[in-house]
Amino acid sequence: MDIKVLEQLLAEVRDGNLTVAGALDRLRTLPFENLGFARVDHHRQLRQGFPEVIFAAGKSVAQIRGILTALQPRTTNILVTRLAPEKAEVLLPEFPQARYHPDSQVLTIIQGEIMDQGRGVIVVMSAGTSDIPVAEEALLTAQIMGHRVEALYDVGVAGLHRLLAHHELLSQATCLIVVAGMDGALPSVVGGLVDRPVIAVPTSVGYGASFGGVAALLTMLNSCATGVAVVNIDNGFGAGCLAALINRKD
Amino acid sequence: MDIKVLEQLLAEVRDGNLTVAGALDRLRTLPFENLGFARVDHHRQLRQGFPEVIFAAGKSVAQIRGILTALQPRTTNILVTRLAPEKAEVLLPEFPQARYHPDSQVLTIIQGEIMDQGRGVIVVMSAGTSDIPVAEEALLTAQIMGHRVEALYDVGVAGLHRLLAHHELLSQATCLIVVAGMDGALPSVVGGLVDRPVIAVPTSVGYGASFGGVAALLTMLNSCATGVAVVNIDNGFGAGCLAALINRKD
Amino acid sequence: MDIKVLEQLLAEVRDGNLTVAGALDRLRTLPFENLGFARVDHHRQLRQGFPEVIFAAGKSVAQIRGILTALQPRTTNILVTRLAPEKAEVLLPEFPQARYHPDSQVLTIIQGEIMDQGRGVIVVMSAGTSDIPVAEEALLTAQIMGHRVEALYDVGVAGLHRLLAHHELLSQATCLIVVAGMDGALPSVVGGLVDRPVIAVPTSVGYGASFGGVAALLTMLNSCATGVAVVNIDNGFGAGCLAALINRKD
Amino acid sequence: MDIKVLEQLLAEVRDGNLTVAGALDRLRTLPFENLGFARVDHHRQLRQGFPEVIFAAGKSVAQIRGILTALQPRTTNILVTRLAPEKAEVLLPEFPQARYHPDSQVLTIIQGEIMDQGRGVIVVMSAGTSDIPVAEEALLTAQIMGHRVEALYDVGVAGLHRLLAHHELLSQATCLIVVAGMDGALPSVVGGLVDRPVIAVPTSVGYGASFGGVAALLTMLNSCATGVAVVNIDNGFGAGCLAALINRKD
Amino acid sequence: MDIKVLEQLLAEVRDGNLTVAGALDRLRTLPFENLGFARVDHHRQLRQGFPEVIFAAGKSVAQIRGILTALQPRTTNILVTRLAPEKAEVLLPEFPQARYHPDSQVLTIIQGEIMDQGRGVIVVMSAGTSDIPVAEEALLTAQIMGHRVEALYDVGVAGLHRLLAHHELLSQATCLIVVAGMDGALPSVVGGLVDRPVIAVPTSVGYGASFGGVAALLTMLNSCATGVAVVNIDNGFGAGCLAALINRKD
Amino acid sequence: MDIKVLEQLLAEVRDGNLTVAGALDRLRTLPFENLGFARVDHHRQLRQGFPEVIFAAGKSVAQIRGILTALQPRTTNILVTRLAPEKAEVLLPEFPQARYHPDSQVLTIIQGEIMDQGRGVIVVMSAGTSDIPVAEEALLTAQIMGHRVEALYDVGVAGLHRLLAHHELLSQATCLIVVAGMDGALPSVVGGLVDRPVIAVPTSVGYGASFGGVAALLTMLNSCATGVAVVNIDNGFGAGCLAALINRKD
Amino acid sequence: MDIKVLEQLLAEVRDGNLTVAGALDRLRTLPFENLGFARVDHHRQLRQGFPEVIFAAGKSVAQIRGILTALQPRTTNILVTRLAPEKAEVLLPEFPQARYHPDSQVLTIIQGEIMDQGRGVIVVMSAGTSDIPVAEEALLTAQIMGHRVEALYDVGVAGLHRLLAHHELLSQATCLIVVAGMDGALPSVVGGLVDRPVIAVPTSVGYGASFGGVAALLTMLNSCATGVAVVNIDNGFGAGCLAALINRKD
Amino acid sequence: MDIKVLEQLLAEVRDGNLTVAGALDRLRTLPFENLGFARVDHHRQLRQGFPEVIFAAGKSVAQIRGILTALQPRTTNILVTRLAPEKAEVLLPEFPQARYHPDSQVLTIIQGEIMDQGRGVIVVMSAGTSDIPVAEEALLTAQIMGHRVEALYDVGVAGLHRLLAHHELLSQATCLIVVAGMDGALPSVVGGLVDRPVIAVPTSVGYGASFGGVAALLTMLNSCATGVAVVNIDNGFGAGCLAALINRKD
Repeated sequence: MDIKVLEQLLAEVRDGNLTVAGALDRLRTLPFENLGFARVDHHRQLRQGFPEVIFAAGKSVAQIRGILTALQPRTTNILVTRLAPEKAEVLLPEFPQARYHPDSQVLTIIQGEIMDQGRGVIVVMSAGTSDIPVAEEALLTAQIMGHRVEALYDVGVAGLHRLLAHHELLSQATCLIVVAGMDGALPSVVGGLVDRPVIAVPTSVGYGASFGGVAALLTMLNSCATGVAVVNIDNGFGAGCLAALINRKD
Repeated sequence: MDIKVLEQLLAEVRDGNLTVAGALDRLRTLPFENLGFARVDHHRQLRQGFPEVIFAAGKSVAQIRGILTALQPRTTNILVTRLAPEKAEVLLPEFPQARYHPDSQVLTIIQGEIMDQGRGVIVVMSAGTSDIPVAEEALLTAQIMGHRVEALYDVGVAGLHRLLAHHELLSQATCLIVVAGMDGALPSVVGGLVDRPVIAVPTSVGYGASFGGVAALLTMLNSCATGVAVVNIDNGFGAGCLAALINRKD
Repeated sequence: MDIKVLEQLLAEVRDGNLTVAGALDRLRTLPFENLGFARVDHHRQLRQGFPEVIFAAGKSVAQIRGILTALQPRTTNILVTRLAPEKAEVLLPEFPQARYHPDSQVLTIIQGEIMDQGRGVIVVMSAGTSDIPVAEEALLTAQIMGHRVEALYDVGVAGLHRLLAHHELLSQATCLIVVAGMDGALPSVVGGLVDRPVIAVPTSVGYGASFGGVAALLTMLNSCATGVAVVNIDNGFGAGCLAALINRKD
Repeated sequence: MDIKVLEQLLAEVRDGNLTVAGALDRLRTLPFENLGFARVDHHRQLRQGFPEVIFAAGKSVAQIRGILTALQPRTTNILVTRLAPEKAEVLLPEFPQARYHPDSQVLTIIQGEIMDQGRGVIVVMSAGTSDIPVAEEALLTAQIMGHRVEALYDVGVAGLHRLLAHHELLSQATCLIVVAGMDGALPSVVGGLVDRPVIAVPTSVGYGASFGGVAALLTMLNSCATGVAVVNIDNGFGAGCLAALINRKD
Repeated sequence: MDIKVLEQLLAEVRDGNLTVAGALDRLRTLPFENLGFARVDHHRQLRQGFPEVIFAAGKSVAQIRGILTALQPRTTNILVTRLAPEKAEVLLPEFPQARYHPDSQVLTIIQGEIMDQGRGVIVVMSAGTSDIPVAEEALLTAQIMGHRVEALYDVGVAGLHRLLAHHELLSQATCLIVVAGMDGALPSVVGGLVDRPVIAVPTSVGYGASFGGVAALLTMLNSCATGVAVVNIDNGFGAGCLAALINRKD
Repeated sequence: MDIKVLEQLLAEVRDGNLTVAGALDRLRTLPFENLGFARVDHHRQLRQGFPEVIFAAGKSVAQIRGILTALQPRTTNILVTRLAPEKAEVLLPEFPQARYHPDSQVLTIIQGEIMDQGRGVIVVMSAGTSDIPVAEEALLTAQIMGHRVEALYDVGVAGLHRLLAHHELLSQATCLIVVAGMDGALPSVVGGLVDRPVIAVPTSVGYGASFGGVAALLTMLNSCATGVAVVNIDNGFGAGCLAALINRKD
Repeated sequence: MDIKVLEQLLAEVRDGNLTVAGALDRLRTLPFENLGFARVDHHRQLRQGFPEVIFAAGKSVAQIRGILTALQPRTTNILVTRLAPEKAEVLLPEFPQARYHPDSQVLTIIQGEIMDQGRGVIVVMSAGTSDIPVAEEALLTAQIMGHRVEALYDVGVAGLHRLLAHHELLSQATCLIVVAGMDGALPSVVGGLVDRPVIAVPTSVGYGASFGGVAALLTMLNSCATGVAVVNIDNGFGAGCLAALINRKD
Repeated sequence: MDIKVLEQLLAEVRDGNLTVAGALDRLRTLPFENLGFARVDHHRQLRQGFPEVIFAAGKSVAQIRGILTALQPRTTNILVTRLAPEKAEVLLPEFPQARYHPDSQVLTIIQGEIMDQGRGVIVVMSAGTSDIPVAEEALLTAQIMGHRVEALYDVGVAGLHRLLAHHELLSQATCLIVVAGMDGALPSVVGGLVDRPVIAVPTSVGYGASFGGVAALLTMLNSCATGVAVVNIDNGFGAGCLAALINRKD
């Protein structure tokens, strides 16, 4: 809650335009409405500079439809993540402005112009082909938040020449998102090549002792390069948000 | 290796000022010198914008002295982390410019002016009293890299009013470092209050099922707030570096 | 076994109304009957003040029907937890007094009046929308045991204002059940706001390093707030029972 | 912060006795003072009904002395937990009212009468001899908070007759704290014998696959008895607080 | 290989009835035949006193049929464990002597008389209803190996009176198999009541922090009762074999 | 409690020799005495056929002396395990009948003749030299309980010929205790060579990914040989007890 | 990139046949082409001596078809691993030269003669029947890379005589691949019998505390035999590659 | 045991030069002698081509002295690993031929000429300075086994130019040992640069979520480069042995 709102409220009390009881009430009346199963907070966009985001995993089609319907009138841009294709198939005809990205299981609704919010370009890298869905989730997230993004996929450390061939692009980024499963070694190498923040995203790609991404996660937490931060396994959305916050104009 | 150096080298070959064999040799002559036990890379400062850093844990006094002696002539600022007090006691008389910070076990040698590199202020927070040493390591790291830092300690979530009392300071930061052990819940709360990157640092403070910081680490990786990135347990240095990269002027 | 039963039995022996062999037999005749696959203990209700409870996960429809049929004549209230919808669909027509709650997968049979057993109100909170099924299991459990319950859902710590808006309700509770997945941070915050017992229920909601609820479980076990107790992951039933025991009139 | 304080503050604004700026200032002036290394919150006692508590592990003698000195003038009762004997030896002569309990490493300072806060008696049980220190920490904590406590030690499940001999005492408790290491089986058995809340405290007693208390912790979380809640490994203090909250008069 | 066989072989060499080359050949000719995918060792029965056992999990119907067909002519008793119902349905008509036990997913073929091999009776206990399939696997295994077995199911520690009612049966066993999931506490209690070997079998019954039987496994490994040995999670077969070896006549 | 005691008690009530209240009292008077810190149960020897055992780890010299002094008058044989040498040094002069075994840190007091309780011989094996202390604890435990034991040390699977050279001894055992750290593979090999119960004891010998004995523990739990049971890491005492129960004459 | 290519490039620059800008461009033009979703590196075969390999798990039929089509014209031998039968069924008619191995889920396309690359024979062993698929993946991998391989399956340590019967074959190998699930003990035994490198491959075969192969993995990492190296769980392909590198002629 | 020894033995029996009983005796007389605490196997050198090796961790000075004294007369080369400096200090004066390497805690006794056993050169690399002790253990092990070794230290992936500067040396190795702690990423990068076997050695260097080397271990097991095998954490000795077996002349 903004300090100015509080200031004005106190001023109204001072000027007799608002009773004490009314002030207490207003202090309690916070800006969200109740859909029954989730409180949609329309002010969140203002507070955090984000589009509305719906995490669709574990939500029914009916629940997602309900939230989309409540949100849409306010011309917000909307990002739905982890939306299974069979749910998308039902929802797409109902929301003509929606676009579905099957690789990353992301649905976007762009209803307002996306203003450029960024200081520079964000580079999103993936170590292998199988890491691309997570990388795309990061890329789409940063884009809908108003940032320029370049993708550089399948540049894992076992074929170092592929990575080094793009050294110039790396050095131009304001911030890099590096997505890797299996040994998760790519962020360490990238972190040693650039002097920019590297957001490392472990993926659940792998088998056996990869433990669903734990091996890559630990590699990244123990990176011997400086400037590497880690988000949760497969959390492309989180990486995209964080990159947007880092790259945003002040 | 800079593209311009390569360009110039090729030009010299073109102009006949350098033979092919000589060019190959020069390409191999990379800018580090060999102390026997560690290659000190004087160009790293240029490449990454960092002071020289020595991780003292597991190094003998003799080894640290050797590296310091090799580095010092070049007027670099130097940061020594995880330097046990008994080692510091031996080294301090030998390096009069050195200053030791016993809480965070950090030793700094400032030999050149530290230019302001930052776009704004970095806020370093700790949840409890016992988390302060790690927070201080982060603070000193960011400072020596040329950034303005504000500290806000002992503001854990079990006493929410202490945290909320400083809402204004939080909202002014370019980037926040949030240090917490035990339940590691503070970054989630801070991440919900600000729209800036939050670097979460789990600490090994706690007992029993805190598992040396693993509980706090997992809490932070699973933060339901957006914009939260995580570094290794007790890695104040890494958090300071990352904050410096995020806050730096382009 | 009640001390008075034993006292009376001994008195009968003393008075010659019962032989030693008969006394030994009676001591062995404990109050449960054998359905073949599970001993239904009708005295448990007396001993522990609970309705009959059936944990349906891993039981076949035939097994559940058998237990329900054995229990029902005695006019006990019955609570069936973790009953999959497809099993409920078969059983509902056969037990007209049964009511199924699809969200929480709970089936209740209310055959006697539920007397108010409580000293006050129990507040059940959930951090996110996806945590509601577990919260509902807790709520229904406490209700069938004779307690007044208030629900407060989707008040996670990343949107602190939603939680603080309900501070008054929190302070009126005799006991609070706080259900949270992902970072599991909500009980720490609630525990700092109230001076009542907080029963923390981790849920398996989350992905990656949430490890099926382990992250939330560890957060709660390491809570820096006092007065927080933890039950098993997704154990809404256990939380409801415990709250009922805490809130019960002496 | 109490709703009445806020109400009065708004009334002062309304009545012109307080400017808007002054009100904002007062809203920020929260009741804690700054010792430099930890904010001592004197209102916490009021908010949560607790004595002042100092967790001494990881704090130096100087830090503990500082906090004690700041707290003592206000005639609060004080509980210091995890105070190593060598630290206690230094502090005891300086604080004549202090009493040290070497088994549980607890130091208490009783400066005001302890009023009876409880509805009934709390029973503290330990499975083995080695679990007693943790049980004592729980016992002393509940006592200083104004509760009657009975101890029942060394009644582990491998000698069931010892436990059953005390069935009557168990049935008289309002709430039971059950402390056990190794297999951690005692709370399950106790939970089946009583219809009161059981607070299970795993201890780090054991070796090999006890993993510092993890085995006991998991046993307790998976207890097949109802009404069992779990706190962190070795967390006698937390168990004592929780029992006090459960047993307190409304 | 028996020392007597070797002795006789050497005697034949000595007596000129066997050449050196022939002796080497015979030493190599070990008693198993090759089915292509598994070496069936017909002498194993002699060496270890067991019926032929087939672990069917992960084997196709064709593979199981092949092994059964190779084994059957030799009139051995056969035990097939972990045979899914859909595989059993195919195999039963082809092997008329086979009997399938759907609860435990065990198939038995009894072709020779089962001689009593035991010194006494083995008692198989289960803590809950859901643990019965594993208990039945143990029971059938011990029976086919020639041992008398008594079953005692659903006697978990949360209802101690059920267990104590059978104290006499327990005290008559030569060896006890105790099967339990969730908290796995039953073997500790049984181990304290009897002075016979207790084979503890953890099951994967449970949810959340039971971790597929790990909680019960750890409880049993840390049992504070003496005379408790542990086998793998859900390993009813192994428990039955071990009980048979313990109970066998010398 | 024996059924005959109960029978007699009831008879006394019947005959008017005992009042009801007296009978209840007697039922409560169980045979243990209270030393203050541990209930010494003198009937345990009768109930379980064991000598008195004191687990000295974590007990002070004063506590051990207290228990020994209480036990000794009753001419029981006594076994003290995990007794550190510095504690033994203090206690030995005070208890002249005591004998200390420094390798296994076991102290024995033999005050009565040890009658042979066994059906045959128990073989105790160790894989490596470093596993011998745990093996010796098992050996001494079985011996004091009245069993013949043969030791066979340093016969790990990496030098298979050493093990096979003793095949005859193995085949003569009634029961085998197999102690191994590191890869823990020895019990699997031994279990395949004999048709007797094998008690596998993992030790904490090893480094790196042995995780203090967890690797060996898991190997043993997953043994592909039949007839292998497992006890806790380093639990030589438990293995000795179990072997004694298996080998005992009926 | 080969040093000779660089040498020639520099010579062209020297001779004026290549401009500096052109040289920089050529340095960047690395030998891979872009299929959109994965960079196929045709030079990899030369650099590492391997056939082209496609890891099919997680790739769609369309993706695999695309890569096969791009690779095939260049007459490379191709190995596709982890190809599910239903995908193979679609692809086989389209690639007539392909051969599918259903046990190991491997597809091979042999388009050029496979030259013998080996110094000797590689022996591939499996402990059980269920481990054969992983062993076959290793065998086919080594074969397509030009090596002679002998298979020895179902020779686990619980039936030691089966293994020892093949001692001669073991001693003739240049390198051994030993595949085992459950207790994973076979490599330790084999490593003690031979003086050649042993590549240990843990498999996910097992249940309960085998934790999907972790038990076998730890056993192998802790092998007390020398000369044992470990690859990831179920990684038959990796073992085959490594054996090929070890066995290759220089 | 060699087949020829057996052949000759059988021939002696045939020729009447050896009785059956004598033959059985001789078969049992295996070539090791008993020092009381460890069987020293002098034939192991022949069987496996290794020097005698003593793992000194956990052995007393007296035990090490005993083994050394028993071994030395036979002019074997001896390698003692993990010998703490304080033990070395005692032993060095007693064994004048011994040489101690304090960094790697290795003691060597060279009593015979070391013949070159290798096909080529082994390269030993370390990622950081702190990994050198483990690398040195590997280097000394391979050297005493008769192999040429080149060291390349402090070439971690965060400074890729240091590694690439030595590409030529890497490409000349027959086999590479790559030692790394923290993120353990170096073997993946090296494995992508060479077409030779890479033995990856994780070290316990690191802190926090490195979990004593587990992070590096997992990284290496999940390496996306082919030809990488892994040994236990800090197992320099094992890596050296394995490299020697790989590099040895046939």
